[in-house]
Amino acid sequence: MSSQQLGIVKRTIVRADKSAVEKLSRFGVATVHEAMGRLGLMKPYMRPIYAGAHVCGPAVTVLMHPGDNWMMHVVAEQIQRGDVVVAGVTAESTDGFFGDLLATSFVARGAKGLVIDAGVRDVKDLTAMQFPVFSKAISAKGTIKATLGSVNVPVVCAGALVNPGDVVVADDDGVVVVPAGIAVQVAEAAAAREANEADKRKKLEAGVLGLDMYKMREGLERAGLKYID
Amino acid sequence: MSSQQLGIVKRTIVRADKSAVEKLSRFGVATVHEAMGRLGLMKPYMRPIYAGAHVCGPAVTVLMHPGDNWMMHVVAEQIQRGDVVVAGVTAESTDGFFGDLLATSFVARGAKGLVIDAGVRDVKDLTAMQFPVFSKAISAKGTIKATLGSVNVPVVCAGALVNPGDVVVADDDGVVVVPAGIAVQVAEAAAAREANEADKRKKLEAGVLGLDMYKMREGLERAGLKYID
Amino acid sequence: MSSQQLGIVKRTIVRADKSAVEKLSRFGVATVHEAMGRLGLMKPYMRPIYAGAHVCGPAVTVLMHPGDNWMMHVVAEQIQRGDVVVAGVTAESTDGFFGDLLATSFVARGAKGLVIDAGVRDVKDLTAMQFPVFSKAISAKGTIKATLGSVNVPVVCAGALVNPGDVVVADDDGVVVVPAGIAVQVAEAAAAREANEADKRKKLEAGVLGLDMYKMREGLERAGLKYID
Amino acid sequence: MSSQQLGIVKRTIVRADKSAVEKLSRFGVATVHEAMGRLGLMKPYMRPIYAGAHVCGPAVTVLMHPGDNWMMHVVAEQIQRGDVVVAGVTAESTDGFFGDLLATSFVARGAKGLVIDAGVRDVKDLTAMQFPVFSKAISAKGTIKATLGSVNVPVVCAGALVNPGDVVVADDDGVVVVPAGIAVQVAEAAAAREANEADKRKKLEAGVLGLDMYKMREGLERAGLKYID
Amino acid sequence: MSSQQLGIVKRTIVRADKSAVEKLSRFGVATVHEAMGRLGLMKPYMRPIYAGAHVCGPAVTVLMHPGDNWMMHVVAEQIQRGDVVVAGVTAESTDGFFGDLLATSFVARGAKGLVIDAGVRDVKDLTAMQFPVFSKAISAKGTIKATLGSVNVPVVCAGALVNPGDVVVADDDGVVVVPAGIAVQVAEAAAAREANEADKRKKLEAGVLGLDMYKMREGLERAGLKYID
Amino acid sequence: MSSQQLGIVKRTIVRADKSAVEKLSRFGVATVHEAMGRLGLMKPYMRPIYAGAHVCGPAVTVLMHPGDNWMMHVVAEQIQRGDVVVAGVTAESTDGFFGDLLATSFVARGAKGLVIDAGVRDVKDLTAMQFPVFSKAISAKGTIKATLGSVNVPVVCAGALVNPGDVVVADDDGVVVVPAGIAVQVAEAAAAREANEADKRKKLEAGVLGLDMYKMREGLERAGLKYID
Repeated sequence: MSSQQLGIVKRTIVRADKSAVEKLSRFGVATVHEAMGRLGLMKPYMRPIYAGAHVCGPAVTVLMHPGDNWMMHVVAEQIQRGDVVVAGVTAESTDGFFGDLLATSFVARGAKGLVIDAGVRDVKDLTAMQFPVFSKAISAKGTIKATLGSVNVPVVCAGALVNPGDVVVADDDGVVVVPAGIAVQVAEAAAAREANEADKRKKLEAGVLGLDMYKMREGLERAGLKYID
Repeated sequence: MSSQQLGIVKRTIVRADKSAVEKLSRFGVATVHEAMGRLGLMKPYMRPIYAGAHVCGPAVTVLMHPGDNWMMHVVAEQIQRGDVVVAGVTAESTDGFFGDLLATSFVARGAKGLVIDAGVRDVKDLTAMQFPVFSKAISAKGTIKATLGSVNVPVVCAGALVNPGDVVVADDDGVVVVPAGIAVQVAEAAAAREANEADKRKKLEAGVLGLDMYKMREGLERAGLKYID
Repeated sequence: MSSQQLGIVKRTIVRADKSAVEKLSRFGVATVHEAMGRLGLMKPYMRPIYAGAHVCGPAVTVLMHPGDNWMMHVVAEQIQRGDVVVAGVTAESTDGFFGDLLATSFVARGAKGLVIDAGVRDVKDLTAMQFPVFSKAISAKGTIKATLGSVNVPVVCAGALVNPGDVVVADDDGVVVVPAGIAVQVAEAAAAREANEADKRKKLEAGVLGLDMYKMREGLERAGLKYID
Repeated sequence: MSSQQLGIVKRTIVRADKSAVEKLSRFGVATVHEAMGRLGLMKPYMRPIYAGAHVCGPAVTVLMHPGDNWMMHVVAEQIQRGDVVVAGVTAESTDGFFGDLLATSFVARGAKGLVIDAGVRDVKDLTAMQFPVFSKAISAKGTIKATLGSVNVPVVCAGALVNPGDVVVADDDGVVVVPAGIAVQVAEAAAAREANEADKRKKLEAGVLGLDMYKMREGLERAGLKYID
Repeated sequence: MSSQQLGIVKRTIVRADKSAVEKLSRFGVATVHEAMGRLGLMKPYMRPIYAGAHVCGPAVTVLMHPGDNWMMHVVAEQIQRGDVVVAGVTAESTDGFFGDLLATSFVARGAKGLVIDAGVRDVKDLTAMQFPVFSKAISAKGTIKATLGSVNVPVVCAGALVNPGDVVVADDDGVVVVPAGIAVQVAEAAAAREANEADKRKKLEAGVLGLDMYKMREGLERAGLKYID
Repeated sequence: MSSQQLGIVKRTIVRADKSAVEKLSRFGVATVHEAMGRLGLMKPYMRPIYAGAHVCGPAVTVLMHPGDNWMMHVVAEQIQRGDVVVAGVTAESTDGFFGDLLATSFVARGAKGLVIDAGVRDVKDLTAMQFPVFSKAISAKGTIKATLGSVNVPVVCAGALVNPGDVVVADDDGVVVVPAGIAVQVAEAAAAREANEADKRKKLEAGVLGLDMYKMREGLERAGLKYID
């Protein structure tokens, strides 16, 4: 299935390696994004509905039409413990596709969070439940249940391609998608990067300049940088 | 008075039924919006200046020109205890029409909150006062006092029509306007809806799917939904 | 140097008068902006990365290209205790030019905060450090180090001109720039304004209307305001 | 009927005075807007789909839900020769609610144009038909026919309140709404304004300055304007 | 290759069936989008740089970083006669990635057009060349050549997934992507749809209402529509 | 005068060298922007009100408050034959600060065009006059004449700093500002660049790839680019 299709629910998906997901959950979005070679990031308009929200898990995906959340109920059945639901919409919509009732259902089914390229509502309740949601908008606007979308097809969400089973990592810095096939290697690269950063942080704290630590002075001079008084 | 007019202050307005306002104050914006048949919602760019802000009350309205807050002082006199001031602007403006001094005056006059399709400032002070403000922007930009607007005429605020006396309900999900003439029936519909939701919430918590609870499976199948592995 | 230039680092700049900076740090952005005659304000899209962030200090400026934060390391060396780094970009960019490592370096060099017309990342860490950052966006997107910009040249940041040494004041209401040459007089005007406000606040608290306190009734009548019932 | 309602088609509406409509059709949007006292203007995001589009006529109104154009077919039946259809949506939508087939139907029923706070498509065909459309977006996205809206109720369109029968004037400068009840007087004021402008234009062409023609020099001096060299 | 990768140029791609491309080129974007089941549409911010621009062809894709157009030269070599270049960017950018020199090269290589989720420049020259470009922005901002992207990997462009070889159709209504694997069947569906429309158009021209032609009256009544006077 | 000030009209300004202006007028915005080292560009939201608009001349500047165009009449008097008026606003505004009467006056005074970080109106008339205007918005909204701004002070317009006398070049690609002090050298650099481009264009037309013409292959390989089939 190489493209978006409507009216389909894929029940069997291959989730990313469990231990890779667990490892990736220890890192922030910026670190994972760097470990991937600076790919997979959703647009910065995706924001957590409360400060400190954080989630990491394999994606079950859902594709919907603007103003129609029918498939949210269909995707609920496909959730396995630890999954993150990723919702794309076929055109721009800020309506409230998701609220406290669906959140209750998702939690009961084991979902760890929601990433949606549209609006959500009942954010006070969702915050009280500490159910992490990353969305494009907050809106009380109700949606209808009239048109079929799909579940567990590839979706584009906030500018990023998400295949079912891919790992989604989201925190205050945004949302990044790690393809299932490279999750292990990205987790390792993230760990390496973070180890590397601890040492750098200590030097910078001591007042060492990045100019010296990264040996940038020569490159800058070659590029023509001039110091004047 | 069927349309917007300038230079007029209407002193006598018919506020929505008091007990209806009191009842509506117990519900969130999403519930009230649904109870109204999904109407009356302002655009989602209207946000509270602090998390958890909530207000419900009859509207006194004010219409101003961009960058000119003269009428804010005129509307202050028309506030009665429990009112919410709703401010529309004749063209787009993000300037700071309202700050801590006006808030002090509004509170002294009995206002319960402000909904404004423009910017406000002194948000730290307003937050400390716990005076709920819902606005399009936060901006320190000062305004002038040069041109007449009106008070207690119908205004369009963030895409919603607000007549003086209508009930305005605002919380983290946005702002909804309930026409005074249907406030009682909307309050009842909201109560019915909420009663109804408690039961649904319990079922969903127990793991029952919306697919089954709302009996959606047949409709989805009729629409052509296909499950594949 | 009357215009933007690339490839230059100015090491000697004249910072605004120290006691003026100290005085200005006691006032909010709205007060300072009014004291300046309503000038110097950055666009309202500049927001603090955490509620309550506040900073005041002389600007060291840096001009960068979109997606390229090389000069951030160059500006770090020019920071003196108490400075605020102000970063402009030659075209629109939401990428994450600044994160916890650079923040660690800036703090070690004595920087009090950052104002940047682009994105930043690691906002959870920056918040934990209580390092005040005011930015256009939050984004994990990494940047490169390929092209020269300049340090301590005049920059346009979010619509405001900032010369190195100017005082930058930023809080929940936004960011305002006070030219170094008028910092003393603006600080005095701000103090006068604030003194003046305390008295007004008391009157308004007591229920006096702005209409009477500011003697607006006559002007409104002359402008044609009509009261109807 | 003082507020928005769903599921209603009002067949009998009072259209603005015919000769007033005819008179208003001779003036541009800016002139009419000024003649109304600077009210009634829609947001500037409303743009004609082709340069030079111009329309003036009484409004038949339609209220729809995002992504659902069912009521477009309902409003078609209510069109009388010379009417302009004005379409509001209960939440933000950029989908294509209108294309060449509906345009063919509207033209057959006598419509002179469409003003819609959403998207339209087939703009090449609409341009070839020279059917003036003013919209928020151009989008090929198809819409569904699932939910009731209303016809000939008051609607908010792009920030302006439109009652059925009001006169809508639209050209390259945007869209303005003239309440039916004041159409005659606004048409007269517009004519007076335009007559007045011809004389001014001649003077300005001859090099007379607005400063002198409008006698602004004294006011500017009193306000403190200083000329320096 | 199931996801975006950097530093790769795929030389061999399977382009959509030639005759399907030829057939699709006869239809507008709205028709093709409908024929696909309302999928594959790019966001409506993608606009032609001149009115009447139209293009249809198999996609060669290029993925770039913000502000860096190095890969544009790499993709030029992969163009075959009739191709449309589709360019995605790893983060938001409005810079001018493409101008008259690259257009000259693309034309020489046989390209029929460009679809780019960023900015372009020299639009006067591109218009004179009648080289159809669909972009997010127009900007003179120059780009650098510093970082690798990829050619002929799947890219997300303006919210749509584009695989190399897919058919891209673009006109005044926007841009739609037809997966290569279903191009034949979509072309047929488009033809059927258009044939069908000619008949409808005639009826509507004759004054038949959509209400009757589509037999909507019963459904509307069942949904509760009420006619009042 | 190193910063923005209100209430001042500077009558004597030093305009950029005449022959440099004349030379610059032969080049497009992209060429001039490149010749400046990729600086001085206004934001891409600045658009011409008609396709093909082009202007080049020394700037007379005006600073205004949102919704207040009083100073437009003041700046009219300071225009000399060949000048381009550049208008900045102290906060965001889309109102119509300029229309056909002011255009008539500006033309009579010798102005060649207007660049304004706000809205304009009467665009049909301005187009008929072929008076080139580059603006942020088109809006019929009228402005008032209540508050002083300044004339011929440095202004920030759409993100660019403009000093009076600087050369402003604007065309379909946007607007660029050349500081008066470097106008001669930028004109020369632009000429050199354009001469250089003619040769490149010929080669590209003949099918030579940029990869070869710019000798990029080695650099790409060093950066790790891999070709696969």
